[in-house]
Order: sequence, then C-alpha cells, then structure tokens
Amino acid sequence: MPITLYELAAANPEIRFSPYCWRTRFALAHKGLEVEGVPWHFTQPERLAFSGQAKVPVLVDGEQVVSDSWEIAKYLDAAYPDRPSLFGGEAGLAHAAFINAWADGVLNPGISRLIVADILPALRPEDHGYFRQSRERNFGMPLADVIAGRETRVEAWRQTLAPIRLTLRRQPWLGGDAPDYADYIVLGSLQWPRCISRFPLLEADDPVAEYLARGLALFGGLGANAPTVAAA
Amino acid sequence: MPITLYELAAANPEIRFSPYCWRTRFALAHKGLEVEGVPWHFTQPERLAFSGQAKVPVLVDGEQVVSDSWEIAKYLDAAYPDRPSLFGGEAGLAHAAFINAWADGVLNPGISRLIVADILPALRPEDHGYFRQSRERNFGMPLADVIAGRETRVEAWRQTLAPIRLTLRRQPWLGGDAPDYADYIVLGSLQWPRCISRFPLLEADDPVAEYLARGLALFGGLGANAPTVAAA
Repeated sequence: MPITLYELAAANPEIRFSPYCWRTRFALAHKGLEVEGVPWHFTQPERLAFSGQAKVPVLVDGEQVVSDSWEIAKYLDAAYPDRPSLFGGEAGLAHAAFINAWADGVLNPGISRLIVADILPALRPEDHGYFRQSRERNFGMPLADVIAGRETRVEAWRQTLAPIRLTLRRQPWLGGDAPDYADYIVLGSLQWPRCISRFPLLEADDPVAEYLARGLALFGGLGANAPTVAAA
Repeated sequence: MPITLYELAAANPEIRFSPYCWRTRFALAHKGLEVEGVPWHFTQPERLAFSGQAKVPVLVDGEQVVSDSWEIAKYLDAAYPDRPSLFGGEAGLAHAAFINAWADGVLNPGISRLIVADILPALRPEDHGYFRQSRERNFGMPLADVIAGRETRVEAWRQTLAPIRLTLRRQPWLGGDAPDYADYIVLGSLQWPRCISRFPLLEADDPVAEYLARGLALFGGLGANAPTVAAA
C-alpha cells in the first residue's frame, strides 16, 4: 500500500504549494518511497481529524499517521533505515534543526511578506474568507498592504539569503556533496512562491537561483514539473 | 608538545575577544587537547607570516600550521578521530557549514553594529589607527555613528536570534543532547561582545541568555572565567 500524503492545494487541486508539504514530497522522493498525494484545502479541518490536529502535511503509512513536516522526516528515517538517510545521523539531525528553524523563522516569513496576497486568488472561493481573515490578523493589516512596495523590498529579502550563498561557496548542497533534508527544507520554501505567485523573487545570476534550478531537477524534475499558477 | 593558538588580544593581553578564536578555544576543549594561547595584536601580520596569511586564529600542532577557524575545526576532527567529534560525521559537518555561514553573515555583523566602537579603547594605542580605519572603511561611517541608537536597535538584533530560540525548543544544544561545534560557533559569537564591551545584548529572561550561561560553564567555566573589559 503506498504512502498517502495530505497536501495543501489551490483551487486547481493539482497545484500543491505549501513549503512544508514540499519538504515532505522531496523527503519521500529521497527515500525512494511511492506516495499518493491527496489535495486538501484550508477550510477542511474535519478531513484531518483522524490525525489529531488540523494542519498539513499529514502522512499515512499503513497504521502510522504522522503530522508536522519535521516529525514526518524523522519518522521516515526511523521507519526506513535501509534507504538513503535524510539527516545522516544524530549530529546531522541536530544541526538540521537549526536550518529548519531558520527557514521557519526567517526565510518563510520573509517570503510571505512578498507574496501572501498572491495566494488568495489562487484558492477556492470558499477558502478566501478563512485565508484573508487569518493572515490579516497575523500581519495586522490588509493583505494588499503586506505586499506593498515589494518591488523595492525584495532586494532586502535577497540579502537574507546570505547564509545559503555562503554555504554554497563551500559545498554544492546544504547536505554536502549530495542533497539531503537540509536542502529539502530550503527548496520547499523556494518552491512555495514559485508554485503560487508570479512575483519574481530571485535574480537570474544569484547563486541561489542556480541552486534552486538544480534542486528542482532532482528526482526526474519533481519540483520543476509541478503545476504552478503561471503554468497550470 | 602542546598545541599553540595565536589569538586576538586586547591591550590587556589576557583579554582574548575574537569570536573566531573562541570557536577554536571551545573546539580544543571539546577535543580535550591542551593549548598554549599566544596573544596577537591587529598590527602584527609579520608574526603570522609563517602561516601564509595574516589573520587569527592560527593553530600550530607540531609540524602542522592551520589557519581559519573552520579549517582548524575540520583539522582537529581529522587529526584526533579518537577524541569526541566536533561535527558528528559528514552530514553533521555539512549542516554545521550553514550554521557557520549564518554566524558569519548575520550574527557577527549584527553584533558588530552594536559594539564595534567599544573595541577601539580596549586595544593597544598602536592598534587604534588600523582598527579605526579598516572598520570605518567597511562601515562607510565613523565608529561612533555605527553604534548610534543601539539602545533601541538592540531589540531588532535580538529578533535575529529567532533561529537559535526555535532550535532550543527542540533540543538543549545546537548539537542535540550535548554541545558540539555548532554550539561553539554561536557561543564564540556571543562571547566576543561579552569580553570586549559593556553594552548588554541579551535580556535576562531570553532563552539565549540561559543557553549562553550553560555554554560559558562548559569545560570548567572556560568561557565564564575568561578575562573581560568589565572584569579584567
């Protein structure tokens, strides 16, 4: 029985855009595990009730139900130890926790402030109210105001990627000579705006853009071939 | 023959304040290696000529001469594989490179903008000219202007520590259950202003302050007992 993954979907259910769900998608591909993705929408908490919480990704592997992308990654390494490791051992896991924290606390909030208003029109009409209200409450302002000035602010955001650029001077992947979960964290974050927004975040000559292109080509173009609002 | 470490020193040569030298100090203690610290001052490049470059830390271990804190840490793990590992293997090393990049690209520049002017009066008079000119060229303004408004700006700097706080919610050390080089990177950065400035960076109830206190207590209080400008 293949693994089932509940993933955040746009009105076009083929568009899966959550950075956290992408972490899991890449992780499953790294482990060489088959997966059936199930589209899920923001206002369907009852469909996740079986997991004891209300957010995706939720992974169902036979009797096992695991939510939270970080917990899912740890589960996959523990449950499938004979397949390629996501973390490379205890220190690899511990240090990846910092990269995960940086993505959650710096990278994702920064991207959100540039593209959050683009998400709304891509959602099903019945999800608009929830999305607008929850995000406007978080930001304390209308979504249009959140992204205002992004054409100039994006330059400051690009500077927040300095730790990625500095790392890539030493090694081709955050995982070292080959990609691992550290990369899937960051690639998941960068895949999110690529799927759900047309706003260009990276300049063509940015080493991070070259890195993203390599990441999207992994696993037969898993990321590159994903449906997006620009090419759905 | 003990290892020799050339370390950046203040006018009081017992005050060793470089964040990069502190990374190495902690790393040597982690490996359980004896070290003789040799004070070095900013305007003494000729004393490092034997290393082929002009910056500290420089480590001399018998015939081996290694400069650059990152290279030194890798050298120590390779040369002393039977002692406690600094990186915990290949993935641990690869992921620590990101933490190192974050400290070099975000944490240290942020600290510098709050305390750089405090360094000058702690240096030997003959080092003042070099320090002021090189730093004012980097910042493009007088040192006093760099730190202006720090009493209010420090709050924004504290927010840049979010990745540390988020990681510490999962685990007691960046290295996981026990400290490793990932911690020495960050602890070295936080030890730097503690040694050379009286400006308070962390609030007492900040989880990072609690973490720093634990880090300073390691190895018999190696960090806590170090001479500082406040208690020299």
